[in-house]
Amino acid sequence: MSRSIYVDGRYCPYSAAAVHVEDRGFQFADSVYEVIEIRDRALIDLTRHLARLGRSLSELAIPSPMPDAAMRHVIIEVARRNRVHDGIVYLQVTRGAGPRDFAFPPASQKPTFVCLARPQSRAKIDAKAAAGVAVKTMPDPRWARCDLKTVMLLPSVLAKAAAKADDAAEAWFVDEAGFITEGASSNAWIVDERGALVTRPTGPQILSGVTRATLKDAAVLEQLEVVERPFTVAEAQGAKEAFFTSASAILMPVVRIDGHSIGDGKPGPTAKRLRELFHQAAEALPF
Amino acid sequence: MSRSIYVDGRYCPYSAAAVHVEDRGFQFADSVYEVIEIRDRALIDLTRHLARLGRSLSELAIPSPMPDAAMRHVIIEVARRNRVHDGIVYLQVTRGAGPRDFAFPPASQKPTFVCLARPQSRAKIDAKAAAGVAVKTMPDPRWARCDLKTVMLLPSVLAKAAAKADDAAEAWFVDEAGFITEGASSNAWIVDERGALVTRPTGPQILSGVTRATLKDAAVLEQLEVVERPFTVAEAQGAKEAFFTSASAILMPVVRIDGHSIGDGKPGPTAKRLRELFHQAAEALPF
Repeated sequence: MSRSIYVDGRYCPYSAAAVHVEDRGFQFADSVYEVIEIRDRALIDLTRHLARLGRSLSELAIPSPMPDAAMRHVIIEVARRNRVHDGIVYLQVTRGAGPRDFAFPPASQKPTFVCLARPQSRAKIDAKAAAGVAVKTMPDPRWARCDLKTVMLLPSVLAKAAAKADDAAEAWFVDEAGFITEGASSNAWIVDERGALVTRPTGPQILSGVTRATLKDAAVLEQLEVVERPFTVAEAQGAKEAFFTSASAILMPVVRIDGHSIGDGKPGPTAKRLRELFHQAAEALPF
Repeated sequence: MSRSIYVDGRYCPYSAAAVHVEDRGFQFADSVYEVIEIRDRALIDLTRHLARLGRSLSELAIPSPMPDAAMRHVIIEVARRNRVHDGIVYLQVTRGAGPRDFAFPPASQKPTFVCLARPQSRAKIDAKAAAGVAVKTMPDPRWARCDLKTVMLLPSVLAKAAAKADDAAEAWFVDEAGFITEGASSNAWIVDERGALVTRPTGPQILSGVTRATLKDAAVLEQLEVVERPFTVAEAQGAKEAFFTSASAILMPVVRIDGHSIGDGKPGPTAKRLRELFHQAAEALPF
């Protein structure tokens, strides 16, 4: 549990960390967020996360709650106060609170800013990665701007529940042409027969993942080719390896897609190797 | 302003009405809502609103916060405490609060229930309806389950802002085949050359509006034919009349679509007449 949560200028104990019922994040999903890995008391890829947050805010014309330097300060302070060695920082910005009205509030409206941190068991995630996980595919029901990291996450909540009912750890969404878009909370990857990494190009239908970007850098270290093109469910099922990336899972090997084993049904060497060296390519900011 | 807001069992003053920052309504848009008209100290169509709320909750497997009778009691109490003569009740239910996790919480998790009421100037809405409003059309960017009244409303927020920039009061969404789905916060209607009312059939792409349903009843009183079929932007621009329905606007005549005048550019007789007699067809529960 996060012991201290930053909410609009105050560090609150967990139970007191609240937003108004007329916050636009609560009533309209008018809000964006970021999840940042903490590893060995360091923030991973903070610069890229803040850059993406800036883009989400700017595309939606939500004012930034504070300059980047101040935000870095708050994030570090939250991580410190919660004494997180390995875990995540979660931050969320909304267009602010006020009597319910679809129209944008006046420019004087202050955005809401929430930041919390909590430990995650690295051993547990590592064990999951060592075994690999199953994925379930389903039609992508989401809206047209999945490139923005908004809290429009109900489709992902429902998709994860459907996946879980089939003993799958993640849902992969499929577009109308049969190509995988991305996971409910991750980017999707395969390794093709030549050993190249394949992942869908960024665009309105997927999030430009920070972990995805850093994995591309890690692939360079390993002299692996990265091909950005869409791939189908059948292609993924027939791939040498498959995996997904996210800030909290880093790189998670996929060993089953809709019941079909990938490769020999165990995490593949490329996924394993990239998972090991990922943090050589990532920015780490100790706190 | 709502003077007293019900939040999870307590009636709070406005400034103290808060939900936890880890409420799933705030973090995941994992939440549904209703807006109910108050007119002459009576709740309009409460039964239909509660039935729809029940359907939204059940489709999403969100537990109901309380039995319908208790919910009616809370809604009436909130309307009374806020002494609303004309206005709205807004209620919202979420899947509850807890450490952020896409997975459904355990069955023991209590949903969050918020209910507020606030006055709206009937004279102001009537004046708007007397003049008629402009509408702007745009591609429908929303998700695949718009039949559920969820707080996945960011696309509507953005659409209304785009409409406002063109001096339009509402946005009408258009599907890929060129047919109007519905408004950003309303159902869309036209009157065809024979005088019949035309509105899109319900389905995953539109909300089954309570005001839409009651307007169909009102049309029966007037012996007007209602045809449920999709219509295009061009057809709407060439229609005798156009209007939209919602609980807060009831029936709002549309006099301009993307700059094209509808009919003679003034609210038409059918829309006017239906607006006048709408409440004869509606359920009114005095409080």
